Parts: sequence; structure tokens; C-alpha cells
Amino acid sequence: MKITKIKIKTLSDKYPILIGSGIIKFLPNYLKDNSINFTKCLVVIDRKVPKKLVFEVLNKIPKSKIITHYFHANELNKNQKNVNKILDILLEKNFMKNDCLISIGGGITGDVSGFAASVYKRGLKFINIPTTLLAQVDSSIGGKTGVNTKDGKNLIGSFYQPNLVISDIKFLKTLPKREIVCGYGEILKHSLIADKKFFNFLDKNILDVLTLRSPFIDKAIHKSCLIKKEIVEKDEKEKNLRKILNFGHTFAHAYEATFGYSKKLNHGEAVILGINTASKFSLLCNLLKMKEYNKIKEHLKIAKLPNDIRKYFSIKNLNKIINFMTKDKKNYTNDINLILLKKIGSPIFNKEFNKKKINSFLKKELIN
Amino acid sequence: MKITKIKIKTLSDKYPILIGSGIIKFLPNYLKDNSINFTKCLVVIDRKVPKKLVFEVLNKIPKSKIITHYFHANELNKNQKNVNKILDILLEKNFMKNDCLISIGGGITGDVSGFAASVYKRGLKFINIPTTLLAQVDSSIGGKTGVNTKDGKNLIGSFYQPNLVISDIKFLKTLPKREIVCGYGEILKHSLIADKKFFNFLDKNILDVLTLRSPFIDKAIHKSCLIKKEIVEKDEKEKNLRKILNFGHTFAHAYEATFGYSKKLNHGEAVILGINTASKFSLLCNLLKMKEYNKIKEHLKIAKLPNDIRKYFSIKNLNKIINFMTKDKKNYTNDINLILLKKIGSPIFNKEFNKKKINSFLKKELIN
Repeated sequence: MKITKIKIKTLSDKYPILIGSGIIKFLPNYLKDNSINFTKCLVVIDRKVPKKLVFEVLNKIPKSKIITHYFHANELNKNQKNVNKILDILLEKNFMKNDCLISIGGGITGDVSGFAASVYKRGLKFINIPTTLLAQVDSSIGGKTGVNTKDGKNLIGSFYQPNLVISDIKFLKTLPKREIVCGYGEILKHSLIADKKFFNFLDKNILDVLTLRSPFIDKAIHKSCLIKKEIVEKDEKEKNLRKILNFGHTFAHAYEATFGYSKKLNHGEAVILGINTASKFSLLCNLLKMKEYNKIKEHLKIAKLPNDIRKYFSIKNLNKIINFMTKDKKNYTNDINLILLKKIGSPIFNKEFNKKKINSFLKKELIN
Repeated sequence: MKITKIKIKTLSDKYPILIGSGIIKFLPNYLKDNSINFTKCLVVIDRKVPKKLVFEVLNKIPKSKIITHYFHANELNKNQKNVNKILDILLEKNFMKNDCLISIGGGITGDVSGFAASVYKRGLKFINIPTTLLAQVDSSIGGKTGVNTKDGKNLIGSFYQPNLVISDIKFLKTLPKREIVCGYGEILKHSLIADKKFFNFLDKNILDVLTLRSPFIDKAIHKSCLIKKEIVEKDEKEKNLRKILNFGHTFAHAYEATFGYSKKLNHGEAVILGINTASKFSLLCNLLKMKEYNKIKEHLKIAKLPNDIRKYFSIKNLNKIINFMTKDKKNYTNDINLILLKKIGSPIFNKEFNKKKINSFLKKELIN
């Protein structure tokens, strides 16, 4: 069994991300190696994770130390109320600062649990066991935690680094196809903002990656984590460089919010649509060449990934989309801050556009 | 007019604390010097701060940029609900990350505002204008934010550094005597854990300090901030050294909680009682010499500071006090972690005592 270890160093902390298939069985060793000694641990579990897999984790921890809390993870439940439920258990059971919170689930479970861990006594030990491709390649790296409000996604949250991340590829095998596509959106994004060679690898092996074939999926996850690691280490708190990770996301967040975070469009699908929109806008701004834009567009088509916003939205949704875009966390003024591409592998950031320009661009996209 | 500037550098940030009398009038300069440019600012104001002083701040900011939010600061209102009220305003007014939250008030107002600023879009710009002695010498330095829960004090919170702290001594002149005593508790604590010479200065000039006479009060505030700065810079997240700042506080928090954070005993008075208890316990553990203990005891008596827990508590309160002590954030096991003194100026930390030992000690203190 191959275990790849990526060490993340930020200004405030350092922690390992372990990647491999079936690696969860060595959990006690990882705890020991990372000096994680708790007398109690609260395990927050997404109800969607198959019981068999959950018990592979729970069986590795003495029963007397475990308290479980099942959580129905979806964007609507990613809210302060569910953070408070976790905090109430920690308070009631009098968790100490070196006791532990373990998250088993996707990005939503990790974000909610991580936020609770960050504010409980100003910081509880936190282990993240991401069970979706999206969480393994993206949300488990870099310490962003948070919840949604009625005004938008992740508007309340913190930067909080976990003590350990275990990404077991075995957990992905039971995921529905749509969940794999969802994670793939971020892998693709990482290639587009940082590494043309990696994009070419994905373009060549897209079907093997999407069907989780080794060694293609392993390489895609590992490379994706490495790209994010390098960016996050340089700019933990998103003062500058880290913003490029938001490529496609300003559009994506607005698309999701417009559907009220319903199942019609999940986060990863919204990101893929957003990548497409942001690439097209880069083309229109004379930043990205037509040839490169077509490569991205073709890639999405061949892989049968979402690539046409008109299948999801009509002109009726335009105002709502624009309104959500103006509420985006990345805006520093009333203009809309976008990450765009000048080439595959080369992003441009801190570009600001006024509402009207985006409005007229999206209008054309929705009509044509 | 003399302005003293202390620069705080932590791993994640650096920011200045400005100390002086009447210095608030130069607010626009400080904003400029620290590159704080906001289009909107939410000013959270403790209702107790005299209007005249509040307007000295508000008049220095263009009216069109200001939103005010008055807050009735007390330990009972230091809760998540009041954090949420602030967050709701920020969300509703669509504050951007480089817009600003300004706190005008004591430690409670600063802690609640700072916590809200830390979780809004994972971090809003934050200016703290502490108006009490306690806040100026203690809570405004070091980035601890938080709220109470029914289980105890500051159990939910974050580490978040402000962008600027302005400690105007002029604001202290309207404070009731009891508030000055409250802040003095922390000044005394700083001397006891770090600097015998400073303790001797306080011992000699106690009445001048307590009546806010220059240059005595100026020196006491400045020295107090410097001591805290040095500790916080070495250990921002309280992994080790910073714990010494909790000298007297494990007892103090339990005392306050036992009274349900009522006005019978405010935070600073509880801290002074706690300092006394912790010194006595240090004596009993053969750590502190009788001569040094008596110096501390005499100091409290001469200044007419709280020094006898029997005036506040009886044996009936013992169980409640012990229970709150076991819930203290600093405990890593079921034992009680205490900071003690071996000399004036020399603390010992990470000492753990079982409940029974503390129980029998406090029992004697409450009976004798």
C-alpha cells in the first residue's frame, strides 16, 4: 500500500495530509506520529457516508473515548445552528483543548466541524477525514472553515488548520458519479491556474480519472493537493496570491445561490460552469486566446461535464446572479473582483469589473 | 501631548497600540499611517461610554461612512446572540473584507466586536478603542476574542489581532472608582508574574495610580502593556508561556461564574481575589515564601482592594466554585491547571492539582 504524505506549513501551524487507498486502518499510528493524545473525541459524521466505512474509522479508536454526532450534510444545513449543535455537545461533555474533533464526510461536514473546532475554547484539536473527491482535493487543504447565511456562501467562518488530514481513496469508490464530477471541477481548476502540463495529463486521461482508475486518480489527487499546498503556504489568509484559487468561483457561488443551494446544481457542477464562464470572459477581455479557450471548452464537452449555463439558467435569473456576485467576499469595492486566465496555467488576479459589464456579458451568454 | 507607541508582532500579524491622553483627535492620521481605508465602518459602542467621548471619535470619520450599533456591555450580554446581531448588520449592509469594525468600550465590547470581526468573511478590519483601564492594560492586547456560554466564560472565541488599538487615557477620567480597581487587578498581575521592580513601583505609588495621576498612571499602563506584549509575541496561541497571564484567573473565573457574572463581583475584583487566592495557595505549596506573600497581602490591604473571599463567599458556594474550576479552558485533564508564584516576578506554570486538594484548601479559606 502506498501512502503519500504532503506536509503543509503555514505561518501558524504545520500538519500532514496523508493520501492513499485503504490507509485509514493505520489511524492509531498516525495519531501517535502526530502526538495527538485525547481522552475524548467527538466524531462528526455525514449520514451519507456508508456505515461500513464509518466503522472502519471508529473501530480504530477505543470505544470509551468516542462520542458520535451524525449530521445531514447539505448546503442548507451548513449553518450556524449546526455549528452550535456541535459546540453544545463539546460544552456539555466538557471537552478540553487537547481533546479532539474528527470529521468524517465531505467538504460541508469538514467546514462545519472545522469552524466549531476553531471557536471552541479558541481552538480544539481537529482531524479531517474527507470522504469525497471534492474534499480530498480541495476543502481539506488550507484551513478555510465556515458556514452559509441567507446572504451567501461561507460568509461566516475562520482560518483554522487541522492537526491531521487523512484522504483515503477507498472512500471514493462508493460515491455516485455526480460526486466525482463535483470533485473533478477543482482538480481541473488547479491545473488551469497553475500547471499546463497537469492540464494536458488530465485532458489525455480524463476518462480514467473520472472512473477512479489507478494510477490516474492517485496522481490527479496528489498533484491537485500539491498545487493547492504551494499556494496556501505562500498566502494562508488570502491576502493576495491565494485568491487565484477562486478562479471560476465568483460565478459558481452566484449560480449555486440562485438555485438556493438545491440539488439542481451542486457545488462542483457550479464550479465547472463557473470555470467555463470565467474562461469565456477571459477570452472576451482579450486575455485568453481563442485556441486555449477552445481547449478548455472541448475538454468539458468530451468529459460530458456541465458546460452550458443555458441548460440551467435563463435571462430571468440574471438579476439574481448579479446580486449574489456583488455580495462575494472577494470584492473590496462595489465592483466585482474576478480571477481570469491569460493562458492555461497562468491566472490574473485582482481584476475589478463594474456590475454593468458583467451584466451585459452574462446577458449575452444566457440569450445566445 | 505624548503618544507612546507599542508595536505588537505576532506570527500572523503586526499592529500598533497607541497610548496617551487626548490622542483620539488624531484618528484620521492613524488610519492613514496604518493604511486603513474603508468605505463603511460599523462602530460598536458600549452604552456606558459618555456620549461626549463617543462623539470625539465619530466626529473624526466622515458621517456617510458610519453605522453605529449601541451595545449594553455586561458579562450576561457577552454572548453569541450579540455577536450575531453585529454579524447581521455586517451582512445586511454587505460589508467588504476591508471595511472596518470599530469597538468603543471596555473588554466586553472589544471581545464581542473582535469575535464578530474575526468570523465575518473570515476576517474584517478591526480597530479597538478601549475605554476602561482593564481593557487598556489587558484585553486590548494579544488578540483574544470571545463570548461566554452558560457553562463558563470565554468558552467560544478566536484569536484575532486588531489592525490598530488606541488607548486614550482621557477616557478613563469619567470611570467610577470600581472600574479603576478592576483594571488595576491586571496591572498588579503583570507585575507579579514578570517584574518585581514594577511591583515595587506600584507598591510605592499605589494611591497615585488608583487616582489616575500623571505620570504614574501613564507608566503603569505603558509598562503593563509592554509586559503583556512580550509574552503574547512569544506565544500568540497560548501553547505554553502565555498561560502565565492566567495567574489568579482560574479562581477568578470560578468566583465570577458562581455569582452568575452579576454586579456583586466584577471581573477585575474577581481577579484581585483570585490573585490573592493563588498567592496563598503558592504559599501553602511551599513555592512562595511567607515574606513575599505578606507583601502581596499588605499591598491589597493598603490599597483597600478586595482581599478576603469570605466577604463574598461562604462554604455553601464551595461545590459551585470547584465545578466551575474543573470546566476551565486551561485544563488538559480532569485535574485543575494552575499558575502559581515562586517569587514576586517569577511564575510557575503547568502545575496540575486534583480537585480534592483544591477543595480542601478552599474549604479552609472559606471557614477560617
